[in-house]
Amino acid sequence: MEKMNDVDEKTLIEILEENTLIDLAKYINSVSTPQAGAIATFSGTTRDTFEGKTVVELRYEAYVPMAIRCIKSICSTARSTWDLDKIAVAHRLGRVPVGETSVFIAISSVHRDDALDACKYVIDEIKALVPIWKKEVYGNGEVWKENKEFLERKFEPGSLGAQDNCGSAAKVKKAHDRKGCCGSKVKVLCEEMTHVSSDDEVYKHFV
Amino acid sequence: MEKMNDVDEKTLIEILEENTLIDLAKYINSVSTPQAGAIATFSGTTRDTFEGKTVVELRYEAYVPMAIRCIKSICSTARSTWDLDKIAVAHRLGRVPVGETSVFIAISSVHRDDALDACKYVIDEIKALVPIWKKEVYGNGEVWKENKEFLERKFEPGSLGAQDNCGSAAKVKKAHDRKGCCGSKVKVLCEEMTHVSSDDEVYKHFV
Repeated sequence: MEKMNDVDEKTLIEILEENTLIDLAKYINSVSTPQAGAIATFSGTTRDTFEGKTVVELRYEAYVPMAIRCIKSICSTARSTWDLDKIAVAHRLGRVPVGETSVFIAISSVHRDDALDACKYVIDEIKALVPIWKKEVYGNGEVWKENKEFLERKFEPGSLGAQDNCGSAAKVKKAHDRKGCCGSKVKVLCEEMTHVSSDDEVYKHFV
Repeated sequence: MEKMNDVDEKTLIEILEENTLIDLAKYINSVSTPQAGAIATFSGTTRDTFEGKTVVELRYEAYVPMAIRCIKSICSTARSTWDLDKIAVAHRLGRVPVGETSVFIAISSVHRDDALDACKYVIDEIKALVPIWKKEVYGNGEVWKENKEFLERKFEPGSLGAQDNCGSAAKVKKAHDRKGCCGSKVKVLCEEMTHVSSDDEVYKHFV
């Protein structure tokens, strides 16, 4: 799989091919500017247990063009909500062993609240909306998993069939009262939210 | 000035001597554990303008033993509020040119909300409570500055003379409704909140 990226002057989005470590310093440097007084980051890492079971690694698959479009839309909504300078989002595909980073977000802003709040918004939205799937590989088996938030959004009454792109329909409330729209209350769905795959287990979870 | 640090198994606090860059990767690695699914970080960086004036650099001074004690107390309060794994806080002293990091926080947790919310709390509390002062050096002069939040807390009615240590008296409400106690409503003061200095300008701001 090729490295896919989408870059404009202020937003960098990269979906990384299998076995490519996420270079945190690269993304932090990419959002650093003389105008910014703050950089907030979030790393999602593979942890060693899930619901009491020992996790060996996670494996990620994505419908890459749609994932990039979806992340771009989420970043655009974040920009319209907070006063942000630069944004970088990287997501790794394939195997991600315990302790390694699968998703990384770095956001810069003049004032710290903007970067911090936007960082939380962007990871919440990525987990809920972007067509990236993970398989948890345990010591004694493996299972494809959906993010809880993804299903909440997808099957929320009234949300099916919505034509909104990722993020763009989210009526984001600023800062600390914004949780209500990051949980199950935002009625947004990625368009074409289907996953073309030969793996029936994946397919049944998401179509 | 010597490098000062305070380390326990789960919390690393370092006040760095002049001209020592903050090594972000070191602190991120220091909070990385197999149990953690999330790492949130915040970098405070010197920006090139403040209120329309061109900033050349910031200069930081601290009452180091008190600053470390205060940060430690803030971290302890964060731990009692959120489910956190490891915390690292680094603050640089002396000159910090535009674009460089003066303060860095990295926090790991099993679930992402804990690290993200705690990261915001810790930087808010550091800005408001810790005896570290900054001088803004402009193209045409320089001035010692207090953090707005610091003065809000210090001169809040009823807060003067409080015996609480940093952070320990903060009745922190979790997550998104917590802003109320990170602004001017928390009645906490560092004990011994005076700054021994030969610089009258600094002294008059904080005693």
